[in-house]
Amino acid sequence: MDRIIRKGIAFEPEILEKFDEQSTSKGYKNRSEAIRDLIRKSLIKEKSEDMESEMIGTLTLVYNHHDHDIQHDLTHLQHDNHGIIISTMHTHMNADDCLEVVVFRGKVKDIKKTADGMIARKGVKFGKLVLAQ
Amino acid sequence: MDRIIRKGIAFEPEILEKFDEQSTSKGYKNRSEAIRDLIRKSLIKEKSEDMESEMIGTLTLVYNHHDHDIQHDLTHLQHDNHGIIISTMHTHMNADDCLEVVVFRGKVKDIKKTADGMIARKGVKFGKLVLAQ
Amino acid sequence: MDRIIRKGIAFEPEILEKFDEQSTSKGYKNRSEAIRDLIRKSLIKEKSEDMESEMIGTLTLVYNHHDHDIQHDLTHLQHDNHGIIISTMHTHMNADDCLEVVVFRGKVKDIKKTADGMIARKGVKFGKLVLAQ
Amino acid sequence: MDRIIRKGIAFEPEILEKFDEQSTSKGYKNRSEAIRDLIRKSLIKEKSEDMESEMIGTLTLVYNHHDHDIQHDLTHLQHDNHGIIISTMHTHMNADDCLEVVVFRGKVKDIKKTADGMIARKGVKFGKLVLAQ
Repeated sequence: MDRIIRKGIAFEPEILEKFDEQSTSKGYKNRSEAIRDLIRKSLIKEKSEDMESEMIGTLTLVYNHHDHDIQHDLTHLQHDNHGIIISTMHTHMNADDCLEVVVFRGKVKDIKKTADGMIARKGVKFGKLVLAQ
Repeated sequence: MDRIIRKGIAFEPEILEKFDEQSTSKGYKNRSEAIRDLIRKSLIKEKSEDMESEMIGTLTLVYNHHDHDIQHDLTHLQHDNHGIIISTMHTHMNADDCLEVVVFRGKVKDIKKTADGMIARKGVKFGKLVLAQ
Repeated sequence: MDRIIRKGIAFEPEILEKFDEQSTSKGYKNRSEAIRDLIRKSLIKEKSEDMESEMIGTLTLVYNHHDHDIQHDLTHLQHDNHGIIISTMHTHMNADDCLEVVVFRGKVKDIKKTADGMIARKGVKFGKLVLAQ
Repeated sequence: MDRIIRKGIAFEPEILEKFDEQSTSKGYKNRSEAIRDLIRKSLIKEKSEDMESEMIGTLTLVYNHHDHDIQHDLTHLQHDNHGIIISTMHTHMNADDCLEVVVFRGKVKDIKKTADGMIARKGVKFGKLVLAQ
């Protein structure tokens, strides 16, 4: 388990009260965890702006499965980039649409380039990359 | 296959040229597809701000698997919300961390509430919800 | 002056160290101020999603001043909405472009509607609303 | 005035209809203007990620004017960076708070560094930089 250190942080009572309300309504059980999550998000945002840093990411894609070529093309793109693609999950959303999630690990610049290429593929209706850690 | 209609759109030549460069560098094969993607993104953003609309979404979570309770708690949360959770994918990222992707379908307000509760869970180091379509 | 209370917050040493580095590089003189800024931003984000809340905002507009009607139209729009517009600042950026900043105070829904109308005006090349406090 | 060229763009009828609804509700008078605005936003986003590019920006700051040193410090910071600061506007929002808008022109890296330093200043309750054009 991770070690934990405790530090005194100064707050205006008003913002602390409002933040506690917000955290509780989001499901946080304690204030430290809510603050740590804000800090982690801020660190990840900074890291994701550095093209050379190594990160984990997920790409969410929605596409129409009646377009037979698209699955073939995406599989092809994934194999060409197998070095940074760890796994994928495919879900049938409705009669027309598939949702595919691709998990990446690699340099930000390589992940972004590969994700951009998949999103740009004709037939892909939606694509969004999340960089995490 | 979807029908397609063609409409004349007026552009300043300068921005058209820059946009074509940007689209090409992102991997787009034609201008119409790049414009349609901007439009779809704009529609999805608006839809995701309406708490009552029905959407598909993915939640990306990173957590430390040495914390034995967390997987149990997340599974519990998922079963409590099985009506809006379609599938999950679990990936082992390194010696410590797991990445879990949860696929949702339901009302925006229900998806957000459930996702917030998972992100707030102690031990979850990162969480990000993407609403798609 | 605002009262200040001090609370003990628990951190993993690793993220605290990285956050201190990030804060220092952004110019923060102490950790509490950097954490309070993350908290305030999180509260403002939540408030700005509530259409009925009262907020302050700024709208940044860029437009071509050779289009004589646009300034007239924007002034007209501003007078029609004088109840929520407090002030504006106009800056000549270069031979062609003007930057105009409009300061709003009012309900989020009214600010957004008025700002959207200005951004949509033909001739406005860029528009971005910031909701603050 | 800018020249205009007209290009045929292919759309699925469904997304065109929804986009026309969205554009109308935002105040757009014609489809081309709404599409051009999406394109311009996409180009500005890309430009703002290049630290060496020259841009215009506005920084929105909220601070408590009872803190006498802050205005002095901000003025000082602004003079130290007069090369990239074009103008500022100060608005009294209520008994306690001032809103200050700073207009920048310069390299993205210089604008960001200066803006970060102002936002980090103790007493500044909110700060948000918008890069435009």
